[in-house]
Amino acid sequence: MSSGPAGFRTPFREDGGTIFLIDQRRLPDDLVEYPCKSAGEVGFAIREMIVRGAPAIGQVAALGLALSAEHMRDSRPYARKATIHGAANALINARPTAVNLRWAVERVMARYVEVGELSEDGDAIADAMRAEADTIIFEATTDHGRMATFGNAILPDPAERPVRILTHCNTGPLACGQYGTALGIVQAAHHAGRDVHVWVDETRPYLQGARLTAWELAQAGVPHTLLPDVAAGHLMASGEVDVVLVGADRVAANGDTANKVGTYPLAVLAARHGIPFYVCAPTSTVDLGSADGSAIPIEERKADEVLEFRGVRIAPPGTAVRNPAFDVTPAELITGIVTEEGVVKAPFETGLREASEQAAARWASTPAFRAVRAPAAETEPTAANG
Amino acid sequence: MSSGPAGFRTPFREDGGTIFLIDQRRLPDDLVEYPCKSAGEVGFAIREMIVRGAPAIGQVAALGLALSAEHMRDSRPYARKATIHGAANALINARPTAVNLRWAVERVMARYVEVGELSEDGDAIADAMRAEADTIIFEATTDHGRMATFGNAILPDPAERPVRILTHCNTGPLACGQYGTALGIVQAAHHAGRDVHVWVDETRPYLQGARLTAWELAQAGVPHTLLPDVAAGHLMASGEVDVVLVGADRVAANGDTANKVGTYPLAVLAARHGIPFYVCAPTSTVDLGSADGSAIPIEERKADEVLEFRGVRIAPPGTAVRNPAFDVTPAELITGIVTEEGVVKAPFETGLREASEQAAARWASTPAFRAVRAPAAETEPTAANG
Repeated sequence: MSSGPAGFRTPFREDGGTIFLIDQRRLPDDLVEYPCKSAGEVGFAIREMIVRGAPAIGQVAALGLALSAEHMRDSRPYARKATIHGAANALINARPTAVNLRWAVERVMARYVEVGELSEDGDAIADAMRAEADTIIFEATTDHGRMATFGNAILPDPAERPVRILTHCNTGPLACGQYGTALGIVQAAHHAGRDVHVWVDETRPYLQGARLTAWELAQAGVPHTLLPDVAAGHLMASGEVDVVLVGADRVAANGDTANKVGTYPLAVLAARHGIPFYVCAPTSTVDLGSADGSAIPIEERKADEVLEFRGVRIAPPGTAVRNPAFDVTPAELITGIVTEEGVVKAPFETGLREASEQAAARWASTPAFRAVRAPAAETEPTAANG
Repeated sequence: MSSGPAGFRTPFREDGGTIFLIDQRRLPDDLVEYPCKSAGEVGFAIREMIVRGAPAIGQVAALGLALSAEHMRDSRPYARKATIHGAANALINARPTAVNLRWAVERVMARYVEVGELSEDGDAIADAMRAEADTIIFEATTDHGRMATFGNAILPDPAERPVRILTHCNTGPLACGQYGTALGIVQAAHHAGRDVHVWVDETRPYLQGARLTAWELAQAGVPHTLLPDVAAGHLMASGEVDVVLVGADRVAANGDTANKVGTYPLAVLAARHGIPFYVCAPTSTVDLGSADGSAIPIEERKADEVLEFRGVRIAPPGTAVRNPAFDVTPAELITGIVTEEGVVKAPFETGLREASEQAAARWASTPAFRAVRAPAAETEPTAANG
C-alpha cells in the first residue's frame, strides 16, 4: 500500500484499495459513503453525480486511475496497459464538459508513460500513478487556498452591512476537495471575520445549491438564504446582490466559461445591473486548447433528473425533456477570473496564458511531492512502450 | 338557483351552492376537485394555489363572492353587508399582486352597491352578484378568444420547421378559464394547423410549467419539451427559441409587467438575443392606477414551497428561504402586449389606455349578459345604502 497522504479527504478518502466517496446524491438527509473498487466504478460515480464538482472529479478520477494500477501490480504488461487505457477513457468520457477531469487523467497517464507503458515493474507503475494522483490533490488544496486569498481581496466591502454574495451550484469542499473555489472564497472571507451573507441558488434540476451548498454553509456557520434560481433576477433588480461568484467546468482560452446551467442567465442579469461577476477557477480548469466557448461540448443529461426527484414525479410521465448540464458565459460578461495566480481581467487570452504558465513554473520550482513518492530513477522504462 | 351558464368550467364549476375547483396542487398525478362552500374557502384555495392563474382567480373570486350573497338570501341587511365586505377583503388579500382579482371583486361589489348595500331584497342582491360573476367569466372567455387571434398573427412563421415558442408558468385553461392567454395563443395556432413546438419552463418553485402546462399541452396534442428554467438561456444562445410568450399578473400603466418569478430573466435574455418577447394579458390585467412597476407589490411566499416538494425535502431543515412569487419586467424589454383589443406596442402608456377604453366601449355596446340575468329594474334600491 501507498505511504502517502491518505485518510479522510472531503469528499473522498482512500483505504485499502477502495475509494470511499461521500454520496452527494443522499445529502443533506444522509451522510453516507459510496465505495469504489475500480476506475470503472469511479467513472460510474462521476456520471451518476455521486461525486461532482470540476476539481473534485479530477482528483477522484486521478485516484481511480491509480487504483487500476494498484490492482494490477502483478499483472502482465499488455493486460495492464489495456486495462489502464480503458479506465482512462471511461473516466474522461464520464463528464465531457469538465476539462480538469481530462487534465488529471492525462497527468496520471503521463506518469505511467514515464515509467514505461509495458514495463514489467507493476509496483513502480502503481506507485508512480498514485504519487501523481496525490500530487494533483496536494496542488489543488494549495491552489484553492491561494485562490481564496485573491478572491477575498476583490469582494466588495459595504459599510455597516454584510456583503451579499450570490452563488450558483456548489463549489465548496464537496465539489473541490479540501477547500473550494467560489465557496472557498466565501469561507475564507467568513473566517477572516468579514460580514458575509450568501444567496444560494437552488440550482435545478440537480439542486446542488439547495442540497449541498446550503448544507456546507450551515456546517461552516456562514449566514445564507436559499432561493429558486429564477428569483435571482428579482433580487438583482431590487439592489440586494453585491457580487456574483461562480465556479467553472471549463474556461476557454478567450475567457468564455462553461459552468453549471443557469450561470449564463446570472451573468446577463449581473451585467444589466452593473453587479461584478467573477468566475473562480484554478488554471487546471483553463483549457488553452479550446479557442472559445463554441469549442466546449455541452453535456445533455437524462430526462429523469428533471421529471422526478427522489422518486416523486413532477411532470406527466413520458414528457419530453431538454436537460443541458452546462451553459457558456461569454468572456465579455465576466468581470474577472479568480485563479490561484491572481485575478485575470480582460484581455483574458493573455492573462489566462500567463496565469497558466506562472502556475506551471511555480509548481516546477516547488520540491515536487510526486518526486518523494516514486522517483523516476526507481523505475526501469522498457523500450517497447508503444 | 341561478339559471345562467353553469356546469363544468375549466378549472372550476358551480353546483348547488358549492364551487368545485380542479385541485391544481394534485396535478398531473390526480384529477380531483376541491369543494368551496364560502368566499373564505375560495380565498384559502387561492392562497394555497388550489386554483391559480390571474384570470382564473379573478373569475373564481367573483363566483366566491356571489356565493356569499347566495348563502345570505334570507339574512338581515347589516349582517349581509358585514359578511360580503369581509369576503371581498379576504379575497383581495389572497394574492395581492394579481390585479384582476381586485378588479373582479370590485365589479361584483359595484353590482351589490347598485342594488343597495342595505337592501332588504336578498334575492335581488344574490342574483345581481351572481350575474356579474357570470358576466366576468363570459367576457373573459370572449376576450381570450380575441386575444388568441391577435396573438396568432404576431407569431413568427419559419419556413419548413416549427415555430419554437418558449413559455413560463401556466397560462392555459387551468389558469384562465375556458381558453388561456399565452397558452391560448399557442393552442389557437395549433388548432389553425400551424407547426408549433413549445419549450415549457418548469417554473420553480411551484412547477406550474412541469405539472400543469406540460399536462395541458399533452391533452391538447401540442408538441412540447420540458426544461429547467435555468436552461432557457442556453437554448436562446443556441438559436433554438423564436419567440417568448408569457402571461401577466399585473401590467402597470407604463407597460411594466409583474408575472411569475423568472419572467424578468427571460425578458433580459430575449432582449440580448433579439428574440421577440410578448406579454399576453387582457385589459382586465392592466392597472392604469399603477404608474409603473415600482408600484406593484411583490408577494413573498412561504419557505416550504422551496424547501420541499410533496413531502420530499430538498434542503437542510431550517434553511432560510427567499421566495418572491413574482418579478417585474420593465416595459423597455417587452416587444408587445397582446390584449383582446390588439397588440399594444411602445409607447405603452397610450396604447394600454386606448385598449382599456376600447374594451370598455365594446362591452358597453354589447347586449350585456348581466342585463339578462338581473336587470336593475327588478331591484328596489334602498336610500340607506351607506
